[in-house]
Amino acid sequence: MRFGFLGPERTFTHQALLQVLKQPLLQDALRTTGQELIAYPNVAGAAGDLVAGDIDALMAPIENSVEGGVSGTLDVLAATTGLTIIAEEIVPITFVLAAREAVELSEIRTVASHTHAQAQCADFVRINLPGAAPIPALSTAEAARTIAEMDPSDPAARTSAALCSPLAAESFGLHVLADGVEDNIGAQTRFVLVARDGKIPPRTGTDKTTIVAHLAHNRSGSLLEILEIFSAYGVDLSRIESRPLGDALGRYSFSIDMEGHLEDRRVEAALQSLHRICSRLVFLGSYQRADGAEPTVDDAVSDTTFDEAQEFTAHLRAQIAD
Amino acid sequence: MRFGFLGPERTFTHQALLQVLKQPLLQDALRTTGQELIAYPNVAGAAGDLVAGDIDALMAPIENSVEGGVSGTLDVLAATTGLTIIAEEIVPITFVLAAREAVELSEIRTVASHTHAQAQCADFVRINLPGAAPIPALSTAEAARTIAEMDPSDPAARTSAALCSPLAAESFGLHVLADGVEDNIGAQTRFVLVARDGKIPPRTGTDKTTIVAHLAHNRSGSLLEILEIFSAYGVDLSRIESRPLGDALGRYSFSIDMEGHLEDRRVEAALQSLHRICSRLVFLGSYQRADGAEPTVDDAVSDTTFDEAQEFTAHLRAQIAD
Amino acid sequence: MRFGFLGPERTFTHQALLQVLKQPLLQDALRTTGQELIAYPNVAGAAGDLVAGDIDALMAPIENSVEGGVSGTLDVLAATTGLTIIAEEIVPITFVLAAREAVELSEIRTVASHTHAQAQCADFVRINLPGAAPIPALSTAEAARTIAEMDPSDPAARTSAALCSPLAAESFGLHVLADGVEDNIGAQTRFVLVARDGKIPPRTGTDKTTIVAHLAHNRSGSLLEILEIFSAYGVDLSRIESRPLGDALGRYSFSIDMEGHLEDRRVEAALQSLHRICSRLVFLGSYQRADGAEPTVDDAVSDTTFDEAQEFTAHLRAQIAD
Amino acid sequence: MRFGFLGPERTFTHQALLQVLKQPLLQDALRTTGQELIAYPNVAGAAGDLVAGDIDALMAPIENSVEGGVSGTLDVLAATTGLTIIAEEIVPITFVLAAREAVELSEIRTVASHTHAQAQCADFVRINLPGAAPIPALSTAEAARTIAEMDPSDPAARTSAALCSPLAAESFGLHVLADGVEDNIGAQTRFVLVARDGKIPPRTGTDKTTIVAHLAHNRSGSLLEILEIFSAYGVDLSRIESRPLGDALGRYSFSIDMEGHLEDRRVEAALQSLHRICSRLVFLGSYQRADGAEPTVDDAVSDTTFDEAQEFTAHLRAQIAD
Repeated sequence: MRFGFLGPERTFTHQALLQVLKQPLLQDALRTTGQELIAYPNVAGAAGDLVAGDIDALMAPIENSVEGGVSGTLDVLAATTGLTIIAEEIVPITFVLAAREAVELSEIRTVASHTHAQAQCADFVRINLPGAAPIPALSTAEAARTIAEMDPSDPAARTSAALCSPLAAESFGLHVLADGVEDNIGAQTRFVLVARDGKIPPRTGTDKTTIVAHLAHNRSGSLLEILEIFSAYGVDLSRIESRPLGDALGRYSFSIDMEGHLEDRRVEAALQSLHRICSRLVFLGSYQRADGAEPTVDDAVSDTTFDEAQEFTAHLRAQIAD
Repeated sequence: MRFGFLGPERTFTHQALLQVLKQPLLQDALRTTGQELIAYPNVAGAAGDLVAGDIDALMAPIENSVEGGVSGTLDVLAATTGLTIIAEEIVPITFVLAAREAVELSEIRTVASHTHAQAQCADFVRINLPGAAPIPALSTAEAARTIAEMDPSDPAARTSAALCSPLAAESFGLHVLADGVEDNIGAQTRFVLVARDGKIPPRTGTDKTTIVAHLAHNRSGSLLEILEIFSAYGVDLSRIESRPLGDALGRYSFSIDMEGHLEDRRVEAALQSLHRICSRLVFLGSYQRADGAEPTVDDAVSDTTFDEAQEFTAHLRAQIAD
Repeated sequence: MRFGFLGPERTFTHQALLQVLKQPLLQDALRTTGQELIAYPNVAGAAGDLVAGDIDALMAPIENSVEGGVSGTLDVLAATTGLTIIAEEIVPITFVLAAREAVELSEIRTVASHTHAQAQCADFVRINLPGAAPIPALSTAEAARTIAEMDPSDPAARTSAALCSPLAAESFGLHVLADGVEDNIGAQTRFVLVARDGKIPPRTGTDKTTIVAHLAHNRSGSLLEILEIFSAYGVDLSRIESRPLGDALGRYSFSIDMEGHLEDRRVEAALQSLHRICSRLVFLGSYQRADGAEPTVDDAVSDTTFDEAQEFTAHLRAQIAD
Repeated sequence: MRFGFLGPERTFTHQALLQVLKQPLLQDALRTTGQELIAYPNVAGAAGDLVAGDIDALMAPIENSVEGGVSGTLDVLAATTGLTIIAEEIVPITFVLAAREAVELSEIRTVASHTHAQAQCADFVRINLPGAAPIPALSTAEAARTIAEMDPSDPAARTSAALCSPLAAESFGLHVLADGVEDNIGAQTRFVLVARDGKIPPRTGTDKTTIVAHLAHNRSGSLLEILEIFSAYGVDLSRIESRPLGDALGRYSFSIDMEGHLEDRRVEAALQSLHRICSRLVFLGSYQRADGAEPTVDDAVSDTTFDEAQEFTAHLRAQIAD
């Protein structure tokens, strides 16, 4: 089994992939096959290789509790035909300020990191490193590597620091000058493990289903119509993000996570209704929830109630004269 | 074929039954069997005989454009198991003031009729017969018969009149003193022809479906929920009446006519959703509309769209791993 | 003070009027003025006299727990300008079978009553008086009077009975052959006391508001729209009746009782929204509930919350540049 | 007048600010005061200075037709008290590939730009510059400046290029190797001009209103409830974005642009209803639309209709007895 992930190594995505591979369900599947982990520079590349069969699954961040949806991942998943999310993993996000030596914070002149991490640690930097200049990097791990590989004879080597994950700081042998430097303590990122079509995991009872719904623009109020469908079938949403269609301002698709599994009649019914009114509906997977929370299902939308309703009309239709 | 109707003879119900028997669909069915028409004093009695097999169908008024729903019929249909409406007929309602002789209106001292007819002609009577006393009768035809059978030597015979149908006045040989005496010109009554279960007529394309829905009282706002279902499936309602459940003030069922036939996927889907949320759902029939009006069906609720939505989820469910 | 009521005397309406006049609020108003009670043959006549100033209030039945809305009253209230419901009264409905002498049930050959009472006691009559003929009367009290005034020498005097209220049987000195003969034990009728405009009683905290809403026929789904308004403002409905507009089948107004008083902000807001979307909106009164039930008011629709919302936009509008 | 903008200079934001300052309305206000433009490294800094009174307005991107909402701007506007959007500007977004010399594309080894621009030109780079390495920069203008300031003797100076705006390429004297290199031709970014509170521009008839609504988490289905409010008042939305509250996954606020102005009664009514049900509601401004599109306002939500509805209840409340 070959697993791609949004690299480079030692980022939170790498960590999420290592975590998800310990899930009992996946452990069983992986017992005899072994595994290879491959870092990709972007999700689009990994998705292409996945569709082509070069890798068996890919791991990518989909949502952060502070920054919101990860556009890059959302847009690739929505645009690529033939992919299915088969698992999710949630990783707490915490940053350290790391340098080559155990210097005072006041000595630091530059802070390297990905712009997202710079944004997430902005308060700490403003207060503790008021004079330091931000240096952009392609990833937090890349920032750590850059610091680690500086020429020790360069005076800047002593005054340069990186904002990175504890894992990256440790891997590259950096000194942690401060930890927990993120503005929002308790931030989390949710990652999804994506496989090729045709492998929807069976219902576990604590599941989530992900879709992308394109509104039909000849129907006014269609987001309202979509939410009414979920409400009518008692399907709760755990995430809803608008994404621009890209052709003009004001035209959107909606990326949605709902409680429940395709095998739940209420979810199946909601998907059918969405299919009727959306101009395009992309099913991105039904999979076990990372938090194991069980949904509360009203009697009116239980599988039994759906079966009884179907029997009711089937019995009537049998009485239609020829 | 034996047809019961809410009697006595020569009422509008009798007229509606004669009219419906001329419908081409029914003509075919009746060609070889002949027909017998039987007047019943009330709908409950006719419904009992219909369920027992003593008659083959019954005709009863269900709705008047001025007076509203006919409670007696609605309640019997809702309460009797095993009945199906198979046709409807609409009859214009007009009354005459009829007497034994061609007297002046100013000579009339009493006006006999059913209380409903008295109500529908109240303006005419107040203006033209200010001193006349109302005499209650069990039906408009019964009122006409009473006048016709008065003893000519009784002085009251000359000063008594009846409010009745033109048909009844003619049948009993009365003089029409005034016609079109109803307050609301253009009033209509809708009648339904009811058969035993198991004989739902096939879809014609211009159909109506009648149900009774009992609200589940542990769900707040359930009438709203019911209307949202019809709206979601693009099913228009042509009649909605609340009827008390009878056990306490403020508890209702709803008697509903909707556009479309049980064979229409949007109607079937609406019935299934209603079955899930109602405490009781009574199907009273799918049958051709008397007015022949064709419904406008949005693409999102056409049979084709429903089929495609079902294929969409069926295709996905086939991909669920064992 | 002169009070009209739907007569004749000794009906349930008469009883309801006597009951409502004992309400403490009305007692105060009536202390010095005295009262006169006047029976009317129909609600329209009483309403005309009320508008003309000949009487000060009128009492009429509006709803029965078995029969449903009382069309005659609903239609007159909806059509008459200048009336306000100021109180309601609920009366348990029970009938007796009464005759001139204490005869055996098997001797009874005719049963006189209003057709509604005949309908409500149909089971009792079918089972216990299988051979008896129904005789229509203008009211249950009139039926009792007719029996009482029969010529004792007429053999039919002994075999005639009336279905009437216990009060009427007693008043006319009849023998009660059987009591509680109604099919639905526990039936109730709700009556309303109606005054001229300009006398809306102040909020008591346990109030009800009555309106008639005409749907705008250029807006599809407008009953749904109306119910959404009540839902949005957390206003529960205790009664909703469709009444035909009278001009054609399928065109309705809705007669509605809602919880709360015009002085409640949520009720005022709902009325304003209804006024915007209805083709016609008739306010028929805010008055204390007979059952004294207190509504549950969600924080989001409390008077305080409405005031805060108004202050929010008022504060913003003050910042608009000239 | 001092105007801040998200710098550095020569980005699209700079261009948008120059454009908006030409709007007739602002021209009038600026005639006598002169103007100074100040680039800020981030929106938070500019917002702080704006609140402190150091600048009079700030310009920032809020939405891109390809990338979606600009989180940095949305989050600062939502979190900062005392700001009002007073104008919007829409700028077409197009990128050029620019270098120090007119070299062949095949010679380019590195491509510098902001990660967002790298993302927006990914297809062009993959196809035309397959071997080139991406170099992160703090902005597209900064990337252009870096290339311009390279030491000509450095061999890399010839093989380095930047993805930047045509304005930046021209300003820094770079050669345009290719223009229109963005994947999505026709992309646009919307910018907003933000002032301090108390300066809401008056209604023009073609306006937009921006808010941030925090859902009350004790109300299930509250996004549905919010959309129902807009639907009930006929207020169309032109943008809706979910933004995480930051405390946990699955908790959101919604950033919303609606058609219409605070002075429109339907908008005022919608804001009041939102205020009642949202745990927090931030008003971010009513301002003229850049596209000048006039909304279609249904009669049921016109100012006149609102006034009439208010008069209706005011007239009734005047009749409540003391």
